[in-house]
Amino acid sequence: MSGTLLEQLVDALRCLPGVGPKSAQRIAFHVLDRNRAGAKHLAETMLQAIERIGHCEDCRTYTEDRRCPICASDKRDNSVLCIVERPQDVTAIEQAAEYRGKYFVLLGRLSPLDGVRPEDIGMDLLRQRLASGVIAEVILAVSTTMEGEATAHYVAELARASNVRVSRIAYGVPLGGELEYIDRGTLRHALTSRRDL
Amino acid sequence: MSGTLLEQLVDALRCLPGVGPKSAQRIAFHVLDRNRAGAKHLAETMLQAIERIGHCEDCRTYTEDRRCPICASDKRDNSVLCIVERPQDVTAIEQAAEYRGKYFVLLGRLSPLDGVRPEDIGMDLLRQRLASGVIAEVILAVSTTMEGEATAHYVAELARASNVRVSRIAYGVPLGGELEYIDRGTLRHALTSRRDL
Repeated sequence: MSGTLLEQLVDALRCLPGVGPKSAQRIAFHVLDRNRAGAKHLAETMLQAIERIGHCEDCRTYTEDRRCPICASDKRDNSVLCIVERPQDVTAIEQAAEYRGKYFVLLGRLSPLDGVRPEDIGMDLLRQRLASGVIAEVILAVSTTMEGEATAHYVAELARASNVRVSRIAYGVPLGGELEYIDRGTLRHALTSRRDL
Repeated sequence: MSGTLLEQLVDALRCLPGVGPKSAQRIAFHVLDRNRAGAKHLAETMLQAIERIGHCEDCRTYTEDRRCPICASDKRDNSVLCIVERPQDVTAIEQAAEYRGKYFVLLGRLSPLDGVRPEDIGMDLLRQRLASGVIAEVILAVSTTMEGEATAHYVAELARASNVRVSRIAYGVPLGGELEYIDRGTLRHALTSRRDL
């Protein structure tokens, strides 16, 4: 590490996503000019977060406790399990929907070519959860990439083996989406998956 | 402070310029997913920077030492002094030009209406520097706002009182700029300030 402390700060800021040399400089000056208190608080919170945030032992999302608030809550429905790929998917669903069930976070998706095997995305843990008899329905909210499809297929097989109902969230044209700007794959899917009125 | 540590981190990230709730979330997850080491380094550097970076006692720019590297350097020309408004202006000139003189950073501009008086922008210090007899030329690189003009005028008077030559950087159409996209004020100035060839 060399240069002045200001140069070191500009350099270090580039670890943030989407921050190039120019924005790093802008952020550094902004912090020094106007918000040292806020930046101090940020730095301290960041150190704590990095140190203490790990994975929930039930659903594998991020949490600083053994179990995340959703898994620990007795107000959530234990019989419905929504399967997502990443912790941010949990946040997205929580912010958007009135979902009252629980989650299971894969932290990845099946990809034999990249060496990602079922046990790497928590399938052992999921199998146990499914076998426990508590879960009545599994909702798949994984991506529609090839790896996502493979993952969905694998989870569906697991669920069926335990006689658990499996569903998948709907894919199609977003609400308010203009057909003209929707990609072809989505539009094709929306047509073939049309529903009778 | 409430909420999970992750929510606190998202909240704290919003002190950065241009970071709204969505990008704060994206940054928080990026850090936790992929770059805890980089973020730890950033947080530590930020704490150090906030703690230790103050103002150079000669030119008033940011530095963690008593004098900034430029003021402390014996390779820079003491007889030329470039007057800028902000520390980031020093960085901009250093990165762009082959300027070998020194700087003086006002940390603001004259604005009687907002209660910014000459002594608030270091004019006492500048007067002393000019009176010392070391400085032969002052280059004004302040903004072209009304406050910038008032500041330029004030500094020019100071310099003349000490028999120091005063110049101002050139304003006009940027190199490579298309006339069609230049604002009227700049274009008008470029015409009236035309130079014989």
